[in-house]
Amino acid sequence: MYRIGIDLGGTNIAVGVVDTRYRIISRCSVPTLAHRSADEVIADMGSAAETALQQAGLSIADCDSIGIGAPGTCDSARGVVVRAYNLNWFDVPVCRLLGKRFGIPVQLSNDANCAALGETLAGAAAGYRNMVLITLGTGVGGGIIIDGKIYAGMRSAGAELGHTLLVLDGEPCTCGRQGCWEAYASATALCRQALAAAKKDPSSALSRLRAQTITAKDVFDVADRGDSAACAVVDRYCAYVAAGLTNLVNALAPELILLGGGICRQGERILAPIREYVATHCFGQRQGAIPVIAAAQLGNDAGIIGAAALKAVF
Amino acid sequence: MYRIGIDLGGTNIAVGVVDTRYRIISRCSVPTLAHRSADEVIADMGSAAETALQQAGLSIADCDSIGIGAPGTCDSARGVVVRAYNLNWFDVPVCRLLGKRFGIPVQLSNDANCAALGETLAGAAAGYRNMVLITLGTGVGGGIIIDGKIYAGMRSAGAELGHTLLVLDGEPCTCGRQGCWEAYASATALCRQALAAAKKDPSSALSRLRAQTITAKDVFDVADRGDSAACAVVDRYCAYVAAGLTNLVNALAPELILLGGGICRQGERILAPIREYVATHCFGQRQGAIPVIAAAQLGNDAGIIGAAALKAVF
Repeated sequence: MYRIGIDLGGTNIAVGVVDTRYRIISRCSVPTLAHRSADEVIADMGSAAETALQQAGLSIADCDSIGIGAPGTCDSARGVVVRAYNLNWFDVPVCRLLGKRFGIPVQLSNDANCAALGETLAGAAAGYRNMVLITLGTGVGGGIIIDGKIYAGMRSAGAELGHTLLVLDGEPCTCGRQGCWEAYASATALCRQALAAAKKDPSSALSRLRAQTITAKDVFDVADRGDSAACAVVDRYCAYVAAGLTNLVNALAPELILLGGGICRQGERILAPIREYVATHCFGQRQGAIPVIAAAQLGNDAGIIGAAALKAVF
Repeated sequence: MYRIGIDLGGTNIAVGVVDTRYRIISRCSVPTLAHRSADEVIADMGSAAETALQQAGLSIADCDSIGIGAPGTCDSARGVVVRAYNLNWFDVPVCRLLGKRFGIPVQLSNDANCAALGETLAGAAAGYRNMVLITLGTGVGGGIIIDGKIYAGMRSAGAELGHTLLVLDGEPCTCGRQGCWEAYASATALCRQALAAAKKDPSSALSRLRAQTITAKDVFDVADRGDSAACAVVDRYCAYVAAGLTNLVNALAPELILLGGGICRQGERILAPIREYVATHCFGQRQGAIPVIAAAQLGNDAGIIGAAALKAVF
């Protein structure tokens, strides 16, 4: 039997048909066009799933279940996307609506939870029972795996790790709070920090980056060419990321922390200083319970694989 | 059958004989005299257990197991107190040493973990599967219960919730880091905040409190008499406590948060403003996954009951 995994993003709907060994044997990706109604988006999720099945020479009768990873707050028990600002979805019973079309069970979890589960089943976290995945993207997402299962807490609202404090009353955050880790450690925050540094030091190569087009990669690239202002921004950014990871080490003592999102492609460039910071700041310092800290392996596939695996886990 | 629970503190060793319904049927408390060797302290733990058994008309043959709640980092799997500064214990295999004397299994966990388990089995958290206990004392301790069991992470080093950040590079903390929640939300921190406020406002009633003798209760008492500087200190202190609890809500979405330690005797005086802060700052604000926030019920008994229950849980 097979399972269908759907990674519902603000930009694309990525669907995969997943076999019992957590391999994606067929896929289909279509634009989300999130300005549309939830019904229209859900219809396209279904059609993309059918396309992926056809490509694999399969039909829905060959599938046990469908799993969905969605952004925002997802109530797994009720199968409802409670709040997803970038989809403009509020209280959308996506599992019921998609289940009506296919007549097989549909499961739901937050996208970062799904990615954490996917990495645990088939990626960089294989063999680990307790791990945390942090995605450094537009925001800072978190997925917690405890005893091999997603831990999401009451109404599946937990693991909003980007919304724990780095600085009380600090930078404003999208969530309405001030000083969240996300406001310092997201890719968005890195770009903002680079633009602020450029303003202070107009002779820096950073000042050639434009607010409209700047990406996190640009900032790393300028630093790698030796620009001292950019290096200082990157160093401080790594400390921000690491300070939040240190909180996770002290609170949860996971065996492994994986970093996902585009920034994790920087690899050892960011992992080495982050590991050093954690080892010197965590409880017990170098004698503390320091986890393995590594980059995620599966990229966007993690979310599809994890979503497909939701039924087996819940 | 019965179980023995030992709450090993820096000041006292409190032992209880606990029945299958988690009631303490007999107890014995002796001073820890922590300047002595670990062997001497462990000998007294054993003697106190025997005294408690005698008082109940029981012998060790009536007992299944012994459980110990100890301060600091405790490795439950190895039965070793890894690091407990206020006992001056480092890598003390307390379970093996006490087990030799009694010939029954001896379990170990951190004292805050035991208190969280005790409240879950027989106190204010009865009926909850996912909860967090925070003790506001000399430090800020944490115990996490997930799915009815202690969650302590790798080498049982997690749940050091007092050592997550409130302010990056803020107040120095005993752990070596700067800006930990403990450095703002412990009873010790409240006293320090009150003394600092008194210095700034010598006309305040706070200025009559002395650094050598000040207690957290003194600060609340002065505030309750209407002193505006003291009220401001207490209000800010409640916000510090609540900001850390908000982090826990966003990260773990527990169903219940209990506050323990002497300060929790202030009851609604602190609980009401803390609840309001959490509801207005957590992810999703009032629509978020807001837990019940209440005072712990069992006081020091929670640690004894939780320690006695360790065998059943692990």
